[in-house]
Amino acid sequence: MIIYDHNLGWRADEEANELMAEAFGNLVYEKEKGTVGYYNLPVDSRLIVSEVEAFAASSELIQSCDTIAVIGIGGSSLGAKAVDSILRHKYPEAKRLLFLENPDPVDIEEKFATLKKDKTLFIVISKSGTTVETVSIFKAAIERFGIDLKGEDKERIIAITDEGSALCRFVDYHGLKAYTIPHNVGGRFSVLSSVGMVPLTLAGYDTCSLLSGASAMVERFFDAQEEHLLLKAAFIASNWREYRINVMFAYASCLENFAKWYVQLWGESLGKIDRCGNRVGPTPVGHIGSVDQHSFLQLIMQGPRDKSVTFIKVEEFEKKLKIPDIRLEHIEKSDYVNGHTFNELINAECDATRESLSDEGIPVDSLTLSRADEATVGELIVYYELLTSLTGAMLHINTYDQPGVEAGKRILVKKFKKA
Amino acid sequence: MIIYDHNLGWRADEEANELMAEAFGNLVYEKEKGTVGYYNLPVDSRLIVSEVEAFAASSELIQSCDTIAVIGIGGSSLGAKAVDSILRHKYPEAKRLLFLENPDPVDIEEKFATLKKDKTLFIVISKSGTTVETVSIFKAAIERFGIDLKGEDKERIIAITDEGSALCRFVDYHGLKAYTIPHNVGGRFSVLSSVGMVPLTLAGYDTCSLLSGASAMVERFFDAQEEHLLLKAAFIASNWREYRINVMFAYASCLENFAKWYVQLWGESLGKIDRCGNRVGPTPVGHIGSVDQHSFLQLIMQGPRDKSVTFIKVEEFEKKLKIPDIRLEHIEKSDYVNGHTFNELINAECDATRESLSDEGIPVDSLTLSRADEATVGELIVYYELLTSLTGAMLHINTYDQPGVEAGKRILVKKFKKA
Repeated sequence: MIIYDHNLGWRADEEANELMAEAFGNLVYEKEKGTVGYYNLPVDSRLIVSEVEAFAASSELIQSCDTIAVIGIGGSSLGAKAVDSILRHKYPEAKRLLFLENPDPVDIEEKFATLKKDKTLFIVISKSGTTVETVSIFKAAIERFGIDLKGEDKERIIAITDEGSALCRFVDYHGLKAYTIPHNVGGRFSVLSSVGMVPLTLAGYDTCSLLSGASAMVERFFDAQEEHLLLKAAFIASNWREYRINVMFAYASCLENFAKWYVQLWGESLGKIDRCGNRVGPTPVGHIGSVDQHSFLQLIMQGPRDKSVTFIKVEEFEKKLKIPDIRLEHIEKSDYVNGHTFNELINAECDATRESLSDEGIPVDSLTLSRADEATVGELIVYYELLTSLTGAMLHINTYDQPGVEAGKRILVKKFKKA
Repeated sequence: MIIYDHNLGWRADEEANELMAEAFGNLVYEKEKGTVGYYNLPVDSRLIVSEVEAFAASSELIQSCDTIAVIGIGGSSLGAKAVDSILRHKYPEAKRLLFLENPDPVDIEEKFATLKKDKTLFIVISKSGTTVETVSIFKAAIERFGIDLKGEDKERIIAITDEGSALCRFVDYHGLKAYTIPHNVGGRFSVLSSVGMVPLTLAGYDTCSLLSGASAMVERFFDAQEEHLLLKAAFIASNWREYRINVMFAYASCLENFAKWYVQLWGESLGKIDRCGNRVGPTPVGHIGSVDQHSFLQLIMQGPRDKSVTFIKVEEFEKKLKIPDIRLEHIEKSDYVNGHTFNELINAECDATRESLSDEGIPVDSLTLSRADEATVGELIVYYELLTSLTGAMLHINTYDQPGVEAGKRILVKKFKKA
């Protein structure tokens, strides 16, 4: 469960009310017409989870693996990575998920060095099946581990891709196992599809509970019970030229990869040319408290007033570590926290920082996760996805394309073909 | 060695030339008067390194440790962490550095679980000695590992702090080993002081070469041989209201912690109220290529023109992993990179992305590190420190204080004292 506190020091005027009504209508339309598919994933993916669970229970190979190597980049890895980081502490027995993303030779070699082929399942993820980084790393894995695609290693590889894609045809050719991604689900909105659900379920996570949390949030939203989401989107869409940067300040180390997922989701969805030809889009920035309140906070407090800040905290951490009631000679100044838990300390830091920014008139809001558990993560994911779709609708942009990343890809191909 | 390419599509006018001359003069003054101490660290810290090396060679305890647990937060950890990440791949034999920073109970418990007291040296770092997170984690470590400050564990603890600080008095009281931080060196500028040099040297890194690279850069700069630094600072200081965000796009996984260090350094140094009472400061953002070119790049390309981008790449990675010349049925589209190295691929991606942004008229510059080695890291650190000081001087702010982080600390104390 998440408690939302959207006190941004802002009230919606009539124009904003219209924006909200229109955007809500847009999302309803997208869902009903099926032009945007992620709204249905929390329900639709239950089948995938059941199938994967049954498959895992019957596969000797899966049971003998201790590692799942996910080969994918961007939307094909960040979501599962974020969930894995948040839930890992609850699952000491889960299989290791190793993400092979960056085509950095030192990084790849280091990760390869930790893999044993007979203990590893490889999952190759690419919507198009032509992502140069992913295909190249896949080839390097084939060579390094002597993977025999035609014979005994068929079961060691699973592909996740769009139906009819190049990767899909590859899989058919070799008779490998594959899961598809619905065509109407973009990479950065795909964590609740097979892209996230297959590796997470195979690793041993209770993805069913995660989908339940997600599904309940989708239902409440379309049932008009989460109005705060509309208000927050309207705040961002109406004020992004003033508050150009939204800082996510997450007070738990395990949320670092979630912050990266959010930066990807917002950056790629909202940085666009709108229907009038204007370049629009707030800049997402992710920070971790309390570490970054020792630095970036200074810029928020005294730098230009161009930032809004969203605090995320975890009400109850799984560990109840106490700050011992020890008096150390000469460093008694921080004894005021003695006997309290670290849980209390980190959350009090979050509250104190929020208060100090709020006192300065900086727009802040907060999300309090009851726990870092499956259902809450599902809700959190959907919250951010819906917020993104709403903000995009209000900015009058296409939230779901990414034309700006194509130019670099074309230049890359040219560079190699010339060489 | 670093090759600097500061083609920001910008030429300094007369006003900028004056800014540059004045700022250069300021730095010379700060160095000569000793008001800012980090300029001298590359030379002064050589003594510390020699002392630490001699100590390590003679200490049985150090030799028997496989882990150095650094307890510190913000400026007390980020620098050493950045260097450790960059150089680790060259030092398979180096002791593990474990950073205990965030007062997150799950994070602390997970790290504690990997520690064995008789194999661990604890280094407690705090300039003031009263940082509540650091002191609290230190107490938790004392309790968890039964550290006997009065007897047999004296040698297992080293403190790094300001002379005369509360932590310094604690150390004296117990007769523990300590290294001091010069008073004129702020936390975020302290990586080349004992704060970074002691843990890194004890871990086994060649910090002497790192200091040489740093020292050469300081010398060349004050000898007026690195004019590009002045130009870049002038570009940022003169244009930050238009280009409000500087994105560091680093094309190597090992640079992720360096990007965090840069974000801290800039954010805390440059986000200030200037001498006329204006809130100023560009916002630093760190990203890793090629991963983030699959997302954040869209925002840079098509979103608002409020960003400049600094590319960092490594000319020669330590590993020469090849993309195998394998043809996979149906996914031949990326065969154009077959037979090339991942080193070539990631750098070509960097160049292609840079070119695509440059073609759009977005201000870009780049730093090419010949290798991710000790001397280059030293140079890179000093480059960013000098750039920060220059930009601060041109913005007419106090680069070295951080008044904005104090309000939250006061509220925190009140919260606990009330409870």
